[in-house]
Amino acid sequence: MRVTTLHGIRDIRLEERPEPTIDEPTDAIVKVVAACICGSDLWPYRGENEITPGDPIGHEIVGLVEELGSEVSGFSPGDFVVVPFCHCDNACPVCAKGMQSACQNLGATAGGQGEYAKVTQAAGSLVKTPALPDPGQVPALLALSDVMATGWHAAVAAGVERGSTVAVVGDGAVGLCGVLAARELGAERIIAMSRHEPRQAVAKTFGATDIVVERGKEGTAAVRELTEGIGADAVLECVGTNDAMRTALSATRPGGGVGFVGVPHGVVLPVASMFGRNVGLAGGMAPVRKYLPDLMDRTLSGRIDPSPIFDLTLPLDEVAEGYRAMDEQRAIKVLLEP
Amino acid sequence: MRVTTLHGIRDIRLEERPEPTIDEPTDAIVKVVAACICGSDLWPYRGENEITPGDPIGHEIVGLVEELGSEVSGFSPGDFVVVPFCHCDNACPVCAKGMQSACQNLGATAGGQGEYAKVTQAAGSLVKTPALPDPGQVPALLALSDVMATGWHAAVAAGVERGSTVAVVGDGAVGLCGVLAARELGAERIIAMSRHEPRQAVAKTFGATDIVVERGKEGTAAVRELTEGIGADAVLECVGTNDAMRTALSATRPGGGVGFVGVPHGVVLPVASMFGRNVGLAGGMAPVRKYLPDLMDRTLSGRIDPSPIFDLTLPLDEVAEGYRAMDEQRAIKVLLEP
Repeated sequence: MRVTTLHGIRDIRLEERPEPTIDEPTDAIVKVVAACICGSDLWPYRGENEITPGDPIGHEIVGLVEELGSEVSGFSPGDFVVVPFCHCDNACPVCAKGMQSACQNLGATAGGQGEYAKVTQAAGSLVKTPALPDPGQVPALLALSDVMATGWHAAVAAGVERGSTVAVVGDGAVGLCGVLAARELGAERIIAMSRHEPRQAVAKTFGATDIVVERGKEGTAAVRELTEGIGADAVLECVGTNDAMRTALSATRPGGGVGFVGVPHGVVLPVASMFGRNVGLAGGMAPVRKYLPDLMDRTLSGRIDPSPIFDLTLPLDEVAEGYRAMDEQRAIKVLLEP
Repeated sequence: MRVTTLHGIRDIRLEERPEPTIDEPTDAIVKVVAACICGSDLWPYRGENEITPGDPIGHEIVGLVEELGSEVSGFSPGDFVVVPFCHCDNACPVCAKGMQSACQNLGATAGGQGEYAKVTQAAGSLVKTPALPDPGQVPALLALSDVMATGWHAAVAAGVERGSTVAVVGDGAVGLCGVLAARELGAERIIAMSRHEPRQAVAKTFGATDIVVERGKEGTAAVRELTEGIGADAVLECVGTNDAMRTALSATRPGGGVGFVGVPHGVVLPVASMFGRNVGLAGGMAPVRKYLPDLMDRTLSGRIDPSPIFDLTLPLDEVAEGYRAMDEQRAIKVLLEP
């Protein structure tokens, strides 16, 4: 089969590799209907994470169940499934507490930018649609495998609730999904921090009431000006850099919270200031499986449509161009069709 | 009047100073009925904080309204009041959000280990009892001026709710009050980390279901053993050292939260591990005024009695001995009678 591999800095290739196989009775094989490129794929692409040259890449997919291990119940070949990027048994004590992204049998989709992918702990991980979705629903469902659930997690971790004022740091796909999540959770005012017009437009579609183009201290000041001078109740940090974290913490009002979902790169937390201002911090890898049934309902009912985050669709053959487009910020997020 | 002053490392004196006066129309003067020594007073006492030699010390008092500024409504001379250690107008945008410890007109009780104290923003800060309390109720009410509200804040910030498993790091007065708060908030299991028998006994009185005597990695392992191997839902960090914070974070289950109320001294937050385990952190100086009406109701109705944290009562004249007793851990907390 064809699958995307990373060989070095900005060296993305589509190669022939053997199809994945059922190794454990809890595995399943999914035929990929749609995949995409994640902002977090850009870290290794840019050489900011260690890689093993030639490793397959990609962790966001939806598809059709191709084959099931003997212990995977509740699914049949041909089912359309959303595959959480982190696999879980959905049964261990950690999953029972609702933190499936720290499952005691954690797995992850690897090589999802390809034709077939293996899902470990398939019975716990997969969520199927009630029927085969319309092709037009596929992009929105694909977003649920990671970014929409991740934006949702940022909003939950930040403590967004009905009537909250919210600021979102980061206008990538996750940040934009965070705006949508905040709207769904009842936020009254949603401030998207973005200086890119196409992203501002998506943010507004998703429910942003205000756009702040400034960054750093000026960005904080602009958010405070919109929030009685004190900062937002909840701030979503959807980048992962130290600058973004500083902005998020300082744009939060005393007693408010930051939800962070960008993998921290060089972040140093200012504990004295957090204590002094009573600003909390929570987040991490999103427990996608926890949110997925609810998010699927909202998506299939048309209540939410995260698909505008995909502003470029390419055949899998052109995956390298997809990476370039995202790296150069010509695209928010690229959908790949195998 | 007589008031306690700090002149250098372990140099506590009782000195004659002028009585405080009304300087602003929002001030009040309170005649101190009972005061006490705080764990946080030991930081400057031990030379671990900067001091100005000769400054009065003490921030926990209850007393009788002596004099009121012209703009202080709702109180009369002779009212028995609990004085939050941090004063607030209880009206600014930050107070309106429930974070009175970051009030835009923040003040603090200074020189509370004396005969009279000034309260700024008195109308917003003070909470009076419905009637003069019985002398036997005074110690419990005194605890509400700081430590009981601070333990409560730790529990709230950690996310304690009905059915939670909770661990408390620190067996000083705040940690013990955190145990009591966790019980009141409906925690099902409360693990007190303590190696001092008298404190263990108070913890059990306050609702601790388990005692862990180990510290550090062994302490974490012991907490995990009591919590399905995964850690507690909520952990209260009531010390402020880096070791205590590490223990608190690692004793929390994935997706759980740490509430921290010990002023951080040398704490470095491990952001990668917090992200990797989805362990949140929130806390800071407690918004005492927010919690005070509820805590006063619970105290006067007899539902809670935090007074066992006071295991030594001394006349104000013996304040230096009070500091020594706490410094040497001969006493949990010392009550002073002017």
